[in-house]
Amino acid sequence: MALTRAEGRSLLRGAGKIIAAPYRLVERRSHTVGLPPGSMVQHPDAEQEDQKPARIDVIRYDDNSIEEYTDVDAAKARELTDTSPTDVTWIDVTGVHDVETVAAIGETFGLHPLVQEDLSHTIQRPKLEVYDEKTFIVLRMVRPLIDAAEDVYERGQAGHDIEQISFILGDGFLISFQEQEGDVFDPVRERIRQHAGSIRALSADYLLYALLDVIVDHYFITLERIGDATEFFEEIVFEDPKPEVQQSLSALRRQVVILRRAIWPLRDVLTSLLRDEIPSLSEKTKLYIRDAHDHLIQAVDVLETLRDVLSGLADLYLSAVSYRMNEVMKVLTVVGTLFIPLSFLTGLYGMNFDNIPELHYQNGYFILLGIMAAVTVGALAYFRRKRWF
Amino acid sequence: MALTRAEGRSLLRGAGKIIAAPYRLVERRSHTVGLPPGSMVQHPDAEQEDQKPARIDVIRYDDNSIEEYTDVDAAKARELTDTSPTDVTWIDVTGVHDVETVAAIGETFGLHPLVQEDLSHTIQRPKLEVYDEKTFIVLRMVRPLIDAAEDVYERGQAGHDIEQISFILGDGFLISFQEQEGDVFDPVRERIRQHAGSIRALSADYLLYALLDVIVDHYFITLERIGDATEFFEEIVFEDPKPEVQQSLSALRRQVVILRRAIWPLRDVLTSLLRDEIPSLSEKTKLYIRDAHDHLIQAVDVLETLRDVLSGLADLYLSAVSYRMNEVMKVLTVVGTLFIPLSFLTGLYGMNFDNIPELHYQNGYFILLGIMAAVTVGALAYFRRKRWF
Amino acid sequence: MALTRAEGRSLLRGAGKIIAAPYRLVERRSHTVGLPPGSMVQHPDAEQEDQKPARIDVIRYDDNSIEEYTDVDAAKARELTDTSPTDVTWIDVTGVHDVETVAAIGETFGLHPLVQEDLSHTIQRPKLEVYDEKTFIVLRMVRPLIDAAEDVYERGQAGHDIEQISFILGDGFLISFQEQEGDVFDPVRERIRQHAGSIRALSADYLLYALLDVIVDHYFITLERIGDATEFFEEIVFEDPKPEVQQSLSALRRQVVILRRAIWPLRDVLTSLLRDEIPSLSEKTKLYIRDAHDHLIQAVDVLETLRDVLSGLADLYLSAVSYRMNEVMKVLTVVGTLFIPLSFLTGLYGMNFDNIPELHYQNGYFILLGIMAAVTVGALAYFRRKRWF
Amino acid sequence: MALTRAEGRSLLRGAGKIIAAPYRLVERRSHTVGLPPGSMVQHPDAEQEDQKPARIDVIRYDDNSIEEYTDVDAAKARELTDTSPTDVTWIDVTGVHDVETVAAIGETFGLHPLVQEDLSHTIQRPKLEVYDEKTFIVLRMVRPLIDAAEDVYERGQAGHDIEQISFILGDGFLISFQEQEGDVFDPVRERIRQHAGSIRALSADYLLYALLDVIVDHYFITLERIGDATEFFEEIVFEDPKPEVQQSLSALRRQVVILRRAIWPLRDVLTSLLRDEIPSLSEKTKLYIRDAHDHLIQAVDVLETLRDVLSGLADLYLSAVSYRMNEVMKVLTVVGTLFIPLSFLTGLYGMNFDNIPELHYQNGYFILLGIMAAVTVGALAYFRRKRWF
Amino acid sequence: MALTRAEGRSLLRGAGKIIAAPYRLVERRSHTVGLPPGSMVQHPDAEQEDQKPARIDVIRYDDNSIEEYTDVDAAKARELTDTSPTDVTWIDVTGVHDVETVAAIGETFGLHPLVQEDLSHTIQRPKLEVYDEKTFIVLRMVRPLIDAAEDVYERGQAGHDIEQISFILGDGFLISFQEQEGDVFDPVRERIRQHAGSIRALSADYLLYALLDVIVDHYFITLERIGDATEFFEEIVFEDPKPEVQQSLSALRRQVVILRRAIWPLRDVLTSLLRDEIPSLSEKTKLYIRDAHDHLIQAVDVLETLRDVLSGLADLYLSAVSYRMNEVMKVLTVVGTLFIPLSFLTGLYGMNFDNIPELHYQNGYFILLGIMAAVTVGALAYFRRKRWF
Repeated sequence: MALTRAEGRSLLRGAGKIIAAPYRLVERRSHTVGLPPGSMVQHPDAEQEDQKPARIDVIRYDDNSIEEYTDVDAAKARELTDTSPTDVTWIDVTGVHDVETVAAIGETFGLHPLVQEDLSHTIQRPKLEVYDEKTFIVLRMVRPLIDAAEDVYERGQAGHDIEQISFILGDGFLISFQEQEGDVFDPVRERIRQHAGSIRALSADYLLYALLDVIVDHYFITLERIGDATEFFEEIVFEDPKPEVQQSLSALRRQVVILRRAIWPLRDVLTSLLRDEIPSLSEKTKLYIRDAHDHLIQAVDVLETLRDVLSGLADLYLSAVSYRMNEVMKVLTVVGTLFIPLSFLTGLYGMNFDNIPELHYQNGYFILLGIMAAVTVGALAYFRRKRWF
Repeated sequence: MALTRAEGRSLLRGAGKIIAAPYRLVERRSHTVGLPPGSMVQHPDAEQEDQKPARIDVIRYDDNSIEEYTDVDAAKARELTDTSPTDVTWIDVTGVHDVETVAAIGETFGLHPLVQEDLSHTIQRPKLEVYDEKTFIVLRMVRPLIDAAEDVYERGQAGHDIEQISFILGDGFLISFQEQEGDVFDPVRERIRQHAGSIRALSADYLLYALLDVIVDHYFITLERIGDATEFFEEIVFEDPKPEVQQSLSALRRQVVILRRAIWPLRDVLTSLLRDEIPSLSEKTKLYIRDAHDHLIQAVDVLETLRDVLSGLADLYLSAVSYRMNEVMKVLTVVGTLFIPLSFLTGLYGMNFDNIPELHYQNGYFILLGIMAAVTVGALAYFRRKRWF
Repeated sequence: MALTRAEGRSLLRGAGKIIAAPYRLVERRSHTVGLPPGSMVQHPDAEQEDQKPARIDVIRYDDNSIEEYTDVDAAKARELTDTSPTDVTWIDVTGVHDVETVAAIGETFGLHPLVQEDLSHTIQRPKLEVYDEKTFIVLRMVRPLIDAAEDVYERGQAGHDIEQISFILGDGFLISFQEQEGDVFDPVRERIRQHAGSIRALSADYLLYALLDVIVDHYFITLERIGDATEFFEEIVFEDPKPEVQQSLSALRRQVVILRRAIWPLRDVLTSLLRDEIPSLSEKTKLYIRDAHDHLIQAVDVLETLRDVLSGLADLYLSAVSYRMNEVMKVLTVVGTLFIPLSFLTGLYGMNFDNIPELHYQNGYFILLGIMAAVTVGALAYFRRKRWF
Repeated sequence: MALTRAEGRSLLRGAGKIIAAPYRLVERRSHTVGLPPGSMVQHPDAEQEDQKPARIDVIRYDDNSIEEYTDVDAAKARELTDTSPTDVTWIDVTGVHDVETVAAIGETFGLHPLVQEDLSHTIQRPKLEVYDEKTFIVLRMVRPLIDAAEDVYERGQAGHDIEQISFILGDGFLISFQEQEGDVFDPVRERIRQHAGSIRALSADYLLYALLDVIVDHYFITLERIGDATEFFEEIVFEDPKPEVQQSLSALRRQVVILRRAIWPLRDVLTSLLRDEIPSLSEKTKLYIRDAHDHLIQAVDVLETLRDVLSGLADLYLSAVSYRMNEVMKVLTVVGTLFIPLSFLTGLYGMNFDNIPELHYQNGYFILLGIMAAVTVGALAYFRRKRWF
Repeated sequence: MALTRAEGRSLLRGAGKIIAAPYRLVERRSHTVGLPPGSMVQHPDAEQEDQKPARIDVIRYDDNSIEEYTDVDAAKARELTDTSPTDVTWIDVTGVHDVETVAAIGETFGLHPLVQEDLSHTIQRPKLEVYDEKTFIVLRMVRPLIDAAEDVYERGQAGHDIEQISFILGDGFLISFQEQEGDVFDPVRERIRQHAGSIRALSADYLLYALLDVIVDHYFITLERIGDATEFFEEIVFEDPKPEVQQSLSALRRQVVILRRAIWPLRDVLTSLLRDEIPSLSEKTKLYIRDAHDHLIQAVDVLETLRDVLSGLADLYLSAVSYRMNEVMKVLTVVGTLFIPLSFLTGLYGMNFDNIPELHYQNGYFILLGIMAAVTVGALAYFRRKRWF
């Protein structure tokens, strides 16, 4: 188990907060009901801070050179793409809530209205669609919000954020769309800048692979955290079945359910990348995508295992509570069964009848004490036979 | 969570009413047993107010003009359809319980007897069938009855109604059949009237898509309400496991089961629209229907998630009840275990034996008090060791 | 809910009888072990009253004429079939336990030995087989034994009977085989006699459809009854979790399991009728069979929903029992916790030590009463804080 | 229900013995680890009595003649097979633990080393394989050990034995391999001897069918017994939830699990016989094998139903235990709640304070009795309102 | 059951240790996030003792000769492979954590970068991939750490270790990669050395089969141990439902889950070996691989059965705990119900009212004793009627 006791306890203390995790069970769709397809509306949950305009960053590279442009407009992005067709141009759009910018990109690059709608309507199911030689991919990025070292409570709990990422793969360019600042792409940016591996020598489809791969790899970080927390609860569920444990298990199970909905449909996307005719996707890159596909299948396997283990732990918790109740009842029963008859006997000889002959025996009191001792010994023997100790 | 505490409490108070929700587990079919196929009979549950005759409304439009006709007869509808084949004619029939009107439409438009039977026999499973170049689609519309703001109790509970909608898609016309006044099509009517989007420029198959899409979108409104209620119960199930919570969870689960039966088979209908040769359905419209299909898959995903979470909550409720019982028993056991032996001791020295030497010790009473204190401290230490506090 | 309270109560009172329902979990097969295929043996469960010989009734009709023959022999049935090949001849055999008659029919009409064996061995799984241009169909008829109005108890419970029905569809004739007197075919007989619908104008395959359809429709009558009973239990399970409720739920669940085994494999039969090359089955009739197939799918959907809801109710029952136990324990704990310490105090001052100073205080008794009141108030405050009221 | 009460009770008394049933959950394989394929080793569980050498019996028949040979050697068996190719030669080998004899047969008939290994390694999963025009089938025979009438306890419990049977179907001969003396083939032997049915006139593939059929039929004998026992427990689980009931249910469930593992894969074997090109298997025999296949599907259906019902019964048992506990607690609570306050009152006036004014009231005692009666009536009314009676 | 009581008890005592078993629920992947594909990094869990360099052993053999080389370098291994192409060269690499050595092998034999990455990144899902005429297989070896006889506790518990094994099958050579010293291949090495079976006469694909087979066979050793433990718990779960039993069941269930994840995907690998075009794999070897495939399917069957039985045992445990609680409560209730009313009566006549007429009756005491006896008999009769004894 990767969590220390202290970390685990800290995890438990935070149990109450988990339920209020920031993932909706049902994503808001009602504000778009009845609009014509292609309508781009801002999500009603979008908060104030999201209101700043979208930012477009461009990295253009080939094996020899690399240029980075920050905060350009759609026209400039198009121009950069067009002027040197042998390069790879990666256009990264942050802030899809800014409907105007997304629409400008859409118009400049000639995207289908349905694609434009899906880009800013950030509740899509992972999917792949091909329109006019351009491949449109939607999926979910799971981003660890804070470092595991910073706050132990967050480990395996609410320390991640689910966000919609979209890609448009065209001939010589890749456009990525994110919801918020902060992503998991920095290792890829570094590899491009550092000329690490062969990424600089390869075309846009390999860049798509690299970004998909880093997204899939980040699923494992969240899964590892959930796994650590699960292993912690495996250890303590029996020894200390407090309701916080049950609440934490329930919260972990819910996270697994939510992650499953985010991850599972990506299988079809990757399978489609491998099997179907995808424009601008080379056979060589497919080898790498097969690798990402294998990792995804593993993530799905892990999710299923976690589901299984968590549901077993919930049963174990119930067993533990039952068992403890049993123990509690045994104590009450033993004490009650031992003393209630004795108390009856004392009550009997505490009565004030004029005529109770036993009261006047010389050794009545001592005889009664003896009888009481005998009753007690008998009851204890009975309990022993029932294996209550 | 989207519900305030006050809203949630109000939800709980209404728990008892939910079970008596207006959806039958098994829809009535017995009154049609043995009738020849094509027989059109009125549903026995049809109430008095349904007895008014069906109403036929027609909207005929093309990119330039729009004409609306209210309460016409079947012959007039046919005539409107025939006279200008380049237009789109939408014939909307409300009140399929009116067997005569439906039969008139059926005859005028040459519908197969089995189609006519299914139109007024409003318990069909969603399906798609093609007869003689006309496509017949049956599905279920889930209509929110009241606005969420009006009555908080209704949120996520019984505030929606399930109704059978049928479509006949022909060359240049679309006929829709509804059970009752009130539908979810108003946004589409407005788009036609306002010339919003491209609906006016496109043909009848696009109108079919627009209506299917608005129906699918309305599934999410109901799902959102159920999701909100579920999240509310996630929060309170542990802190206050009252039986109303369990009843509400059970009612929500039943709603999910009923919705699942209404929604799930629509997948096959949309898949068939996408894959099969459907007369009067253009390739271009299929792109849009693929979008509606994606939304439907998402609705199905959400239903499965809700099922999963609700069943987890039911287990959580049981755990919470068990845990509370455990707490209750601990209190009884602690009190009983502390005082029953002490009471025995007091009883012992309350006996009236002539000869109980201890009674005459100068400090007998105080010695006994000391013994009792020792017993109490011992018992408390025992409980502490058992971690009952 | 379709049951009144009184009807429901009556349902509950009968709960004990349900388990002894007349459907075996495992149908008897052992008496045929090791016999050569084609051996026709009588079922050992066949009762005395079944021992009367089988009866063969024939209805021969075309669009213009209809002839009915009662209790003919196999040779006569064959002759009626052969003499007018343009007619439809429906040969209805009641009492397949009469092995000789079935064998005579089999020989006269040239049936395969395996078919003959299956006809009187009434434990077949629904299946369709084609031998020499003749189609052999086995399925299960679920027949409501008594009218719902007669005896409320029977509603949704044991008021139906499952029986094997076999059909042989040949060129121009249909042979049906039943186990016992009494079937669900009367509406079809009436339609033939009354010349209702188009049945008289169509051939033997349409007659087969009409009989299949009426059998499928009767499944819904049983399902409706089970649904009504389930809805009744949904209402009362929480307010009054008596063991009879649990027994009834269990009996309903068992019925659903048994019906599922009878109904589910019929899907394959109808699918095979729709997809495969079936001799003497016209394309036009297939349209109708598709309709019957849709109804069957709906019946299967309903069965699954009932299973789901019934299993949810069983959990609800357990919850209700747990909750009630909790309530009971709370009462005991409150009473015990309030009075046990007080009783200890009274015991304390009921002791007979010579020297208990408090006993001689002027207001000792009243001081003690005050202390007791304080203890009580404290305990009540504690319970209030624990939300036990 | 087919069991009488007395039989059922006898079943219950034997509950403890069932767990020690002779089927291993995991069959021993470890002693063969690392051996080269084709190695024939004796199973380590083989007992002393199994150590006698294998016996080879041969029946050679055609429509006119029949010859039986007992305890021949492999060479003789081969010779009998070869000398009259128009006959059917059935070579029945009993005692596959005798590795030498099996190897001799294997060599004489030219069997593949992997087949020879599988023959004596009696833990194979049912499978069908074709090597060089010879078809190799492995399956499991379930043999009722004793007659149901002999010992009621055995009914539906441990009264059957699972054994591996292998067949080699060649051109004109069939070799069967059994583990132990005693099989279910006697009815087939009798049919051959008695010239019953058409078995004598048909070839070796029909003999294979006849033996498969009798094995499948015997599955039903065991299933019937389990079904009878299940129905017995359905009746008593609620009225008398003793732990023996639970143990028996658990044992039955285990039997179903074990049988499922033995029976389920046979589906693939029979499907392969029906669909694939199998040497020496005629189309005509396939008709019969389809019949055996239908029976097998039924056995699988029954297994699933039993699983379902048994798991429902386990829940019912838990419910029954919970309900009973509830009843027990109610009694304690009623008695406690009634008498504990009364005892407090008697304690109060049993104190020895000098100054307790009430004690000296003329009717103090009678007034107190009245108060006690009032408290009792109040408590009873409370319980009545809570519906505890 | 294969465990003696003593062995089982020893198993139970170790229950607490099991949870801390050395298999992570989620394997560490996070340290590789964002690295370019083909990066070879050491696993962070790798312990000190793993730090010694990898060792390469080579066995080169043909039917006549055998040569063994220990601890050679990559170049030498390549040379041995190349110099005599008619031999089979088995290169066994132990210690894949040594990234340099693995990279050297990879370079020398021209392995794809993705293969090199997977070799030392030991958390792969079992898979088969073909790159440039070389077949790459990853799977999991389950190795029993200690002999069953050495330490009984380990039986069926943590006494095995899961390790990643990779194979590269080329033309005339097979490379195997292991994580640690110690494997399950010794029987195969002995067979090569002893010239047992036909392994020496066959090519490298047969060697691959032999190694796969011995790995699959070793799954059964672990499964047997888990099966033995499960059977032990089946016997004692009811008679002694201690929490250790529940913990052990939970640990066994977890092991089954982990093994399932290791074993299940190997099916696809073996199926692919059987069905796809695999370079250097002969048809003849496929016959043997089919045999290994059959064994694997059996292992999967056994895993499912164990899951099923273990989950049934968990329910049984809960039942047993409930039942025991019931028994405990009955004792308390019987004692309480018998004595609490009697104690009230004694309290009644222990009161000090001046005027309690009964106290002065001559036989008051004896009459009261008689009443008490009557009350006791009545209560006992009531309990008997409730079948509490």
